[in-house]
Amino acid sequence: MSRRYEDLTGPQVAEVIGPESILLLPVGAVEQHGPHLPMSVDHVIAHETATAVVERVGDELDVWQLPTLSVSKSNEHAWAAGTLWLRAETLLAVLRDLGRCLATTGAERLVLLNGHGGNTTLLNTALRELRLEFGFKTFLVHPSVPPAYGGTSTESELGMGIHGGLHETSVFMHLRPDQVDLSAVERKVPEALAQNRFVKFGGSVMFGWLSNDFDPEGYIGDPTGATAELGQELFEANVAHLCEQLAEIKTFDFGR
Amino acid sequence: MSRRYEDLTGPQVAEVIGPESILLLPVGAVEQHGPHLPMSVDHVIAHETATAVVERVGDELDVWQLPTLSVSKSNEHAWAAGTLWLRAETLLAVLRDLGRCLATTGAERLVLLNGHGGNTTLLNTALRELRLEFGFKTFLVHPSVPPAYGGTSTESELGMGIHGGLHETSVFMHLRPDQVDLSAVERKVPEALAQNRFVKFGGSVMFGWLSNDFDPEGYIGDPTGATAELGQELFEANVAHLCEQLAEIKTFDFGR
Amino acid sequence: MSRRYEDLTGPQVAEVIGPESILLLPVGAVEQHGPHLPMSVDHVIAHETATAVVERVGDELDVWQLPTLSVSKSNEHAWAAGTLWLRAETLLAVLRDLGRCLATTGAERLVLLNGHGGNTTLLNTALRELRLEFGFKTFLVHPSVPPAYGGTSTESELGMGIHGGLHETSVFMHLRPDQVDLSAVERKVPEALAQNRFVKFGGSVMFGWLSNDFDPEGYIGDPTGATAELGQELFEANVAHLCEQLAEIKTFDFGR
Amino acid sequence: MSRRYEDLTGPQVAEVIGPESILLLPVGAVEQHGPHLPMSVDHVIAHETATAVVERVGDELDVWQLPTLSVSKSNEHAWAAGTLWLRAETLLAVLRDLGRCLATTGAERLVLLNGHGGNTTLLNTALRELRLEFGFKTFLVHPSVPPAYGGTSTESELGMGIHGGLHETSVFMHLRPDQVDLSAVERKVPEALAQNRFVKFGGSVMFGWLSNDFDPEGYIGDPTGATAELGQELFEANVAHLCEQLAEIKTFDFGR
Amino acid sequence: MSRRYEDLTGPQVAEVIGPESILLLPVGAVEQHGPHLPMSVDHVIAHETATAVVERVGDELDVWQLPTLSVSKSNEHAWAAGTLWLRAETLLAVLRDLGRCLATTGAERLVLLNGHGGNTTLLNTALRELRLEFGFKTFLVHPSVPPAYGGTSTESELGMGIHGGLHETSVFMHLRPDQVDLSAVERKVPEALAQNRFVKFGGSVMFGWLSNDFDPEGYIGDPTGATAELGQELFEANVAHLCEQLAEIKTFDFGR
Amino acid sequence: MSRRYEDLTGPQVAEVIGPESILLLPVGAVEQHGPHLPMSVDHVIAHETATAVVERVGDELDVWQLPTLSVSKSNEHAWAAGTLWLRAETLLAVLRDLGRCLATTGAERLVLLNGHGGNTTLLNTALRELRLEFGFKTFLVHPSVPPAYGGTSTESELGMGIHGGLHETSVFMHLRPDQVDLSAVERKVPEALAQNRFVKFGGSVMFGWLSNDFDPEGYIGDPTGATAELGQELFEANVAHLCEQLAEIKTFDFGR
Repeated sequence: MSRRYEDLTGPQVAEVIGPESILLLPVGAVEQHGPHLPMSVDHVIAHETATAVVERVGDELDVWQLPTLSVSKSNEHAWAAGTLWLRAETLLAVLRDLGRCLATTGAERLVLLNGHGGNTTLLNTALRELRLEFGFKTFLVHPSVPPAYGGTSTESELGMGIHGGLHETSVFMHLRPDQVDLSAVERKVPEALAQNRFVKFGGSVMFGWLSNDFDPEGYIGDPTGATAELGQELFEANVAHLCEQLAEIKTFDFGR
Repeated sequence: MSRRYEDLTGPQVAEVIGPESILLLPVGAVEQHGPHLPMSVDHVIAHETATAVVERVGDELDVWQLPTLSVSKSNEHAWAAGTLWLRAETLLAVLRDLGRCLATTGAERLVLLNGHGGNTTLLNTALRELRLEFGFKTFLVHPSVPPAYGGTSTESELGMGIHGGLHETSVFMHLRPDQVDLSAVERKVPEALAQNRFVKFGGSVMFGWLSNDFDPEGYIGDPTGATAELGQELFEANVAHLCEQLAEIKTFDFGR
Repeated sequence: MSRRYEDLTGPQVAEVIGPESILLLPVGAVEQHGPHLPMSVDHVIAHETATAVVERVGDELDVWQLPTLSVSKSNEHAWAAGTLWLRAETLLAVLRDLGRCLATTGAERLVLLNGHGGNTTLLNTALRELRLEFGFKTFLVHPSVPPAYGGTSTESELGMGIHGGLHETSVFMHLRPDQVDLSAVERKVPEALAQNRFVKFGGSVMFGWLSNDFDPEGYIGDPTGATAELGQELFEANVAHLCEQLAEIKTFDFGR
Repeated sequence: MSRRYEDLTGPQVAEVIGPESILLLPVGAVEQHGPHLPMSVDHVIAHETATAVVERVGDELDVWQLPTLSVSKSNEHAWAAGTLWLRAETLLAVLRDLGRCLATTGAERLVLLNGHGGNTTLLNTALRELRLEFGFKTFLVHPSVPPAYGGTSTESELGMGIHGGLHETSVFMHLRPDQVDLSAVERKVPEALAQNRFVKFGGSVMFGWLSNDFDPEGYIGDPTGATAELGQELFEANVAHLCEQLAEIKTFDFGR
Repeated sequence: MSRRYEDLTGPQVAEVIGPESILLLPVGAVEQHGPHLPMSVDHVIAHETATAVVERVGDELDVWQLPTLSVSKSNEHAWAAGTLWLRAETLLAVLRDLGRCLATTGAERLVLLNGHGGNTTLLNTALRELRLEFGFKTFLVHPSVPPAYGGTSTESELGMGIHGGLHETSVFMHLRPDQVDLSAVERKVPEALAQNRFVKFGGSVMFGWLSNDFDPEGYIGDPTGATAELGQELFEANVAHLCEQLAEIKTFDFGR
Repeated sequence: MSRRYEDLTGPQVAEVIGPESILLLPVGAVEQHGPHLPMSVDHVIAHETATAVVERVGDELDVWQLPTLSVSKSNEHAWAAGTLWLRAETLLAVLRDLGRCLATTGAERLVLLNGHGGNTTLLNTALRELRLEFGFKTFLVHPSVPPAYGGTSTESELGMGIHGGLHETSVFMHLRPDQVDLSAVERKVPEALAQNRFVKFGGSVMFGWLSNDFDPEGYIGDPTGATAELGQELFEANVAHLCEQLAEIKTFDFGR
């Protein structure tokens, strides 16, 4: 049986979705990713990762995969012609609307799987709104946690391979080998930032940035060594990690 | 070369999209469609139709297929647990946000391909907003125009096969043969409505309705005779028709 | 007894308005109509038509005429100094506010009588919102259905006498004979549009347009032959037609 | 020549409206006014007063009468079935929309003539918004200033004939003699309030009230002695006063 | 025991705040006040006045002092770099949010103590909203009622010492003696305005103005003779007056 | 000279605030903090910390302290009578309004000093909005980074002393020794959570929670051992740390 939410008929919703079910909403983005990657990167990674996770543990954990939100809050790339983005208020409205609808099912757990680092803080904010307004237990997971929000990046990129860098490029090469062109890329690591004690990605001072603040090309990291092999390895590790996270989510309780 | 908008890199947007280009935004929906069809129907039909159209005339007419909006304004099914819908104001905000972003490309024509009849009037309203605010020439097309807005339906359904009826069910059988179950369906045609001179789908009096106003099952039409063969025929006719429409759109000018 | 809603005292509302009553909201507009007609055209026609209809069948059908909304969504004329218009979101908010208030009466049927074609799609959208949020049976009628939304226009205007054309000008001459000046008008029919198979008023491709897209004068049609006699004939036919529509609305039921 | 704004053609707007012109927007309301008066009272008084003023000084002072806003912010009567009201945010949006449109004319002065006391503070707030956003010199006048905002009322009503009291009832009797029924009215003066030093209408402590806070009948004042003669006298005095106010507005300058 | 609302623990709220309690919200502003006064004037005066009032009658009248809103609607000073202001819609949203929260306490009376004349009309509007939506008895008081809304000002300033004039400057000198610099001030009284019969501060015609409409320096009045002694006298009179007002508010009832 | 922003006169803003200046906006909260602490905790800590920082490095780094925002987004405590909170949309609107105003000064750096963990994600989101819309370099700092967003907490509390726990209680005891009552507190550490690998404060799975999800008392941590001495030590370390952060912020550049 399909684990795609939309593949259910209306009457099936009430039959198969219940308190034990987990609703999984992948959130992608369509935004410039430098000259070597298509705008689809975050959309594809969110979607493919969610699909792989659901394939692996969907039945076991009773997970229902919602249609991937393809466009989200990418306004750090507003300078780049073609990037698509919703304003913060619009995305929040979309999430509230979805929350209100999903609350008509019997599910009690809603997981956002976010493929775009620029959404992390807003989605994190939404977790509380959706819990308060609709009673959901809400969770936010990432294919890999963005370095800007506590995740790791490679040492060679000084922990700053955050947009079109080694890992993301590799994962995308694994997923869409024909769509990556490394011929024109260079190392684009904001070295100066690494000298900072506080104001840096994942530093104790959070800061507002646009993707062309560092370099006019708009990617941040060093994709030059990216390979599909590394990508496959990372992708599989991410999927495995997410499956473990979902398993914990499945039984998570506040303990009160 | 891919004709998917998101498959472009950021820098390619400025290179390949220009005044001659047509941007095509498929709009789907995830909503109950009776016991015989999954909630994905409008999503799938909008997406597959757009894909087939772009495959056929994308290169010739310079069409760029945007990611399908999977969820839209389906509040006629708000009564049905599981249906996903955006409020009118939210969908309008999403469209304005997208319009503002797409206006950074060089394209002058934006076509909404709408798979869900419940969106027709709001999208039609948006055509003017997007024209006024961003200067686009804007168009709204349908896989098949909904009977409630001037399209035709079968005579056997008294012109009222508007939601999960013969045609839609057949087209979906063609696209997803494994996902249709006709075992429990019946004829659900609001016969009384057909007696009306004015207040009926496509009548001179427009009226507000919810999909359970007519019958608690929530589908409207007679899917009992649906076949994949009929669906294929309709789908291909629709695609051919849309290609002709796009060709006219390509050279459309106000003539001033 | 007056059939104007506002002529009721507060306590009378509960006494005389009940499940059998029909609430009628005329919606006008104040917008440029070319050099031959005042900006009031849609306001006057909506108001006078509603008044004539209520005079004829108000008692019989228990109709209550609400104050005419004089200004609505006329942004296709935003280019023309003086045109008054509400943004789509504002008009929707006004309608929701009115719906919420009217739901405190016992009436179950709410009819919008729309004199301005530019409102048709938004009002049609509102029909569902008002049905869903307040439980009204909602209807949208027109003095004459605009050709852009399925109505007819004269053959001599190639079906495109949609703004200040033969019919509208004639009706207005009948209603306000002193306010029409045909001395400077010409035929302003976008002939090229008529050649189109799809993209035209009432065509299968809906399109966004502003009233100066076709001609800088901002009227669309051929008012040169307009006469008060024709106008009277049309007006009376419209009123008669609306009375028939209201009679059907009176007993309309979804049949469930 | 008509002094109704909407009677102008589009092209005339630019010809006849200029820096010397005054735009006059009457603001009415449709709200319960006790058992003796129809809901139309404020609508009628605003409209008739504006009309009389423009008749008298329209040509001399170059005044253009906008269509009367029939419904406004009457939520002090939200408890009374049938009362129509816009939320504060909606009315503010309507005023901003109108201001933006009127700014396309050459006029520099915009006068709100407010017939409903419940609007006074919000319209007063809007004066600044419209000045700041659109550059208008903005003014707010009243047929008679409501006692709650500094105007006077009769001594016999202890200064509290603020809604359906002696003066308003009399003026309405003059304007619509057939629509007033004094048979059931009583003195409804909140005597206790008059004892207050601060918290009273026009007192130094402003306070929030709903029209049924004082009495379930919802009118405030003593209409028992109302006569059309008194009404005529008051109406004419009001009109004369407004004409003087407009004359001062005509030449008003900040003196900088 | 502290009378600051925020000094209560969560559990204490339910214990000590009840139907007899008065909630007092001081509303300040941070806006240019000419070259002689800091931007803090309205913030300081609102806060210090509220504090003095609560010190005097807080226990007796069971008053709870809410944290002072430091920034409010100061857009008449939008031209002046540095002035902080919330849009009308934002301030209304803030007040609704606070009202909704305060309604969870047992208090029935909410008093706004407004230090900034530019807020008066909007706060007055909010009184009704908060009464209707949350059931509060609501009140608006001022350290001294602004002349533009019915209060008095000195004769020597022709009643127009409304912003940085004699009284306000004196009161501030009393409160913050080190922060006033009279060396550069002059008399800035819009004398011409005083000639007007209607259009003036407190006149029967309300008008929209920005603080630089009269003079580029942005203060209105004559602070040249300001002294801390006068300020002390005024401050103490104001506090005494407010205490009397609160005493009346304490027992205020609509009398129904 | 005072380093309070509001202590500047209007004309001084342009004189003393320039590209080298840092604007510092402390953000507090008024929300339940268990039975041992007043609702003011976050308000007081944000305000006192900002004041101490500005006292130490204000002149050296040219820092201007804005008035503390006392109320913010505390809806995790919406269940607790008395807690004050702004909706996410309201707080975002307040921040946009402030950003627009502050952009009229010459400053290029805006630092939010956030005392309430529940704001962190929304403020972090706002950093980008304020950078994009107004061009500010924007930063978010904390007296101490909340454990839920990457900061540390004591081992004895298993890293979960996040609301009214050992550290916060101690710091508040230092700042307001008379306002803390430890007589009724207990250890309230959600031990079960600590077992989790992913779903926990600062874990790789972010989750939505309300403060009564763990315990009906609403505090989270173990304040039993809190002392003013520890508080002083922590406070001074925090201030010192913030001063170092500000020094880095002072010269921070994107390096492009």
